[in-house]
Amino acid sequence: MSTLAAQLQQMEAHRSVFENEVRKLPLPTCTAFGSAAAPQAITFAASGQVLSTKDSATVAERFAQTVKASGNAVLRSAGKAPTRVSGKRVAALFSGGPAAGGHNVLCGLKKMLGADNTLLGVKGGPKGLLQGKLFEISDADADSILNTGGFDFLGTDRTKIKTPEQFEQVRQTCIAHNLDAIVIIGGDDSNTNAAILAEFLFSGIKADGSGVQVIGAPKTIDGDLQVPGLLPISFGFDTATRIYAELAGNILQDTRSSLKYWHFIKLMGRSASHVTLEVALQAKPAITLISEEVAEKKLSLGAIVGQIADAVVARYRSKELKHGVVLVPEGLIEFIPEMNALIAELNDLLAHHADAFAAQEEAARPAFIAGKLSAGSAALFASLPGYIVKMLLADRDSHGNLQVSLIPTEQLLSDMVAAHLKKTAPEVPFATQHHFFGYEGRCGAPTLFDAAYTWNLGLTVGALILDGRTGYMASVSGLTSGGEPLAIPLSGLLNIERRHGKDEYVIEKALVRTHAPAMQYFVSRREAWAADDLFASPGPRQLWGPAAKQMPMTVALNDGADALLFRIGE
Amino acid sequence: MSTLAAQLQQMEAHRSVFENEVRKLPLPTCTAFGSAAAPQAITFAASGQVLSTKDSATVAERFAQTVKASGNAVLRSAGKAPTRVSGKRVAALFSGGPAAGGHNVLCGLKKMLGADNTLLGVKGGPKGLLQGKLFEISDADADSILNTGGFDFLGTDRTKIKTPEQFEQVRQTCIAHNLDAIVIIGGDDSNTNAAILAEFLFSGIKADGSGVQVIGAPKTIDGDLQVPGLLPISFGFDTATRIYAELAGNILQDTRSSLKYWHFIKLMGRSASHVTLEVALQAKPAITLISEEVAEKKLSLGAIVGQIADAVVARYRSKELKHGVVLVPEGLIEFIPEMNALIAELNDLLAHHADAFAAQEEAARPAFIAGKLSAGSAALFASLPGYIVKMLLADRDSHGNLQVSLIPTEQLLSDMVAAHLKKTAPEVPFATQHHFFGYEGRCGAPTLFDAAYTWNLGLTVGALILDGRTGYMASVSGLTSGGEPLAIPLSGLLNIERRHGKDEYVIEKALVRTHAPAMQYFVSRREAWAADDLFASPGPRQLWGPAAKQMPMTVALNDGADALLFRIGE
Repeated sequence: MSTLAAQLQQMEAHRSVFENEVRKLPLPTCTAFGSAAAPQAITFAASGQVLSTKDSATVAERFAQTVKASGNAVLRSAGKAPTRVSGKRVAALFSGGPAAGGHNVLCGLKKMLGADNTLLGVKGGPKGLLQGKLFEISDADADSILNTGGFDFLGTDRTKIKTPEQFEQVRQTCIAHNLDAIVIIGGDDSNTNAAILAEFLFSGIKADGSGVQVIGAPKTIDGDLQVPGLLPISFGFDTATRIYAELAGNILQDTRSSLKYWHFIKLMGRSASHVTLEVALQAKPAITLISEEVAEKKLSLGAIVGQIADAVVARYRSKELKHGVVLVPEGLIEFIPEMNALIAELNDLLAHHADAFAAQEEAARPAFIAGKLSAGSAALFASLPGYIVKMLLADRDSHGNLQVSLIPTEQLLSDMVAAHLKKTAPEVPFATQHHFFGYEGRCGAPTLFDAAYTWNLGLTVGALILDGRTGYMASVSGLTSGGEPLAIPLSGLLNIERRHGKDEYVIEKALVRTHAPAMQYFVSRREAWAADDLFASPGPRQLWGPAAKQMPMTVALNDGADALLFRIGE
Repeated sequence: MSTLAAQLQQMEAHRSVFENEVRKLPLPTCTAFGSAAAPQAITFAASGQVLSTKDSATVAERFAQTVKASGNAVLRSAGKAPTRVSGKRVAALFSGGPAAGGHNVLCGLKKMLGADNTLLGVKGGPKGLLQGKLFEISDADADSILNTGGFDFLGTDRTKIKTPEQFEQVRQTCIAHNLDAIVIIGGDDSNTNAAILAEFLFSGIKADGSGVQVIGAPKTIDGDLQVPGLLPISFGFDTATRIYAELAGNILQDTRSSLKYWHFIKLMGRSASHVTLEVALQAKPAITLISEEVAEKKLSLGAIVGQIADAVVARYRSKELKHGVVLVPEGLIEFIPEMNALIAELNDLLAHHADAFAAQEEAARPAFIAGKLSAGSAALFASLPGYIVKMLLADRDSHGNLQVSLIPTEQLLSDMVAAHLKKTAPEVPFATQHHFFGYEGRCGAPTLFDAAYTWNLGLTVGALILDGRTGYMASVSGLTSGGEPLAIPLSGLLNIERRHGKDEYVIEKALVRTHAPAMQYFVSRREAWAADDLFASPGPRQLWGPAAKQMPMTVALNDGADALLFRIGE
């Protein structure tokens, strides 16, 4: 074998040049913990800040033990831990879609637990906890995953722990593995699950009658898990948006080079438009739709199509531009009031007339349904392209609901804009391309921001466990002033929401606040971006050099930061 | 406005933090040119190496002036230019799809021409040359585009200059702008066009009877413009494949995290599989199809589907893996002999039975055509999913050909694998996702390799012009030993090919050589990658730090390099 071939073979299995080097990056550590090499445990104390929601009274009954223990008060560092705690056995798992930085949460946690406590990894997410798929994580394991992306070291899944049988399985796993604590690294639903487990495991689990602690860590690329002033952002958001922003910037540059396409780009991010807003601030395309603004202004689908078409026409007539980029948030459809109304009517009609509908020939079905719709919904229904009508009449999920996320919104919009232009401005060229940026952004190597943030989240999780806490979500605030570990009582975030005809406890998804500074800045600049093609190319995220250290623009703006530099550990 | 908002506004129009910093990167410069700050002109001399193809005799007749002048000999540096040439007016244009590094070709060219010659930019590609859309490029322009991606400074298009009227328009532009030279930055077709223009403009253009020089620069992300020993790779290939490899690596990590999807990824790259092979070497997925191997082994579509299905089954049965990645080259369909035969039969049948076909009801058309196919083609036709049949019977292009690139090969393969598994191994889970990586890779900021390579290509182009040469393509060889500027006589690369019933001059596309070291290395490792999930995550390309300096793996392997480090200017 040649020298080079031998080198290449050495790069297999997560040993690319890049992966080998990122493992050596320094780890900025909040001063509360001392040095990265030997972070010290801290003790926590209740701050004066107590959380509540409209449902706090009911929550206090249902989560009696955890609420009594925490008083729903935010915890802050109270200095170095007075004694060293040892002998704890802690199991950590990933829950839900992957996000960059999860591995560093494990690394920080492992470091804080040290050699005198034990960290176990749960394979394959919550389901692995039910099945008892646990193994001990070694120092070498932690070294190998440091600063790498994805959740592939453990795997993940989307199982919700809610039936009595499942709770019993968790209890059995706790006993079988002699656990003292469980760490759930996940999004809003997973942290709600952590709150429920914390209450269930609060006491009477182990032989001595004591309980098992449960601590959550805030993960999601969607950015919809935020608590103003306490949790600036969920981890993974920065990396995902930097990946999408690079790609959007590349496409902006591409279409400005070949001068002939409008690219419609749908961006992952579920309901909220945080991802789309961040990518827009970074790349500055001609057109960006923000779902929350669409809902607030009660825009119709036709109005949105008209706005896009107007921009296409204006750019062509004033500067002969035949190209551009439109950013579309994944959840847009549900924020268009009339679409929501149409879908609700369709869900009802298809449920109530299931047999008569099924008896129609396929070609006759749209007319059959259209005749039963309200006038407004019927008009909207008639304006939609055939493939969307087909999707709207397709089989429902087990709850009788349409799977809205499957609708190709980017294609729908571009087809409707094309039809609109054909009628109103046939001389304007309008050729299109379509993209969906999603999976490629969840598991990239973390940015320096996500790497530092998650390392400190892991240290915070570990410190909370050694401090005997349960029912909290770890956070790091003060991102531009050194970073401060803190803990948010999960019960203080819970609301009650009606889902599928049942009351459920939920942590409310944080939507884009249209009057917050990030959105206001975007609104102040978007017309200039469209008129003068002022886009920028944010480039690939850098781990070294002068362009490496940035935090998300939306977070910096909303936090009132004076620059994009984060300063964790400084 | 807040401090931060003011900073963000400063980042508009190509002034992101990243773009501002890449403009300051050092420019490695081949020793032949002296320093990057003040590169010196060199003179060229014919080496002993003379190029020929099977059609050289005919080419020598048709390209009499350029062949006589060059003798089809490769030119190498013969040291510092004896006298300083000044007063030349040079026009440069981009042709065809954009690729990273094009701006640096202009920057190198501008630097070499210096203040005593004039560089003009042609707006909007070859069409801009016909229309005389030229403007002078300033030093400030060059500084602003240095190390940035895309062709957006000038724009590009795909016009081929071939009619007498077009040649006359070029002549008029040369006269109107008093040009001494034209630089065409493009792929195989564009460089063929450069050869034809060089002959046409060889003499008798200017008032004094002299001609206009034409020099080409080798661009294409597809990597199919290569000349063994002389042109190691076209520019843009490294950047595009690094972008795709990062994304493929992210998806490998994602699917290993969520443990439930097979991702089918189609990769841009036209006919040849260079891009796919490079991405495979970098990310090491379970399955990679190489078109040239499919053709060589005469694999049927069914055989390819069977191979993928076998791998899916093997990974599940041996390790319970339900996930994986399949890389599919864009041009695959045309390399499957039976598909090629089917498409050719369909093209003929649809041309000969156009009226009878049109008279059929849509639902009856597949059967109508199937009845007229040969037995083999009919069987293949019957095995294809409905949406592919529909595409195969769709309207032809103006030459009566199917637009093969529109066929969603990644979807076709995954659907056929699913159908195959349903019959042969129904217990094996097989959920899929699909991707096409294309436009997002053409205009990213250049890697250090592409940045250095194109800067030196630009210097070489400039030196060739000052040395009075015409009809050459600039190249830089010796990428791991300092870099050597050289010039390839375009007429020495020309073949005659029958296209649309006419003989045309072409530079043959370089396909993947299945017995070359890069392919052999891939073949030696792919089974282990599939069996043990040995993928790596190559990460985002870095411009600073320890992971920044790499060259393409395929190029390094095929050139017999002993490491991945390029050493231009060392």
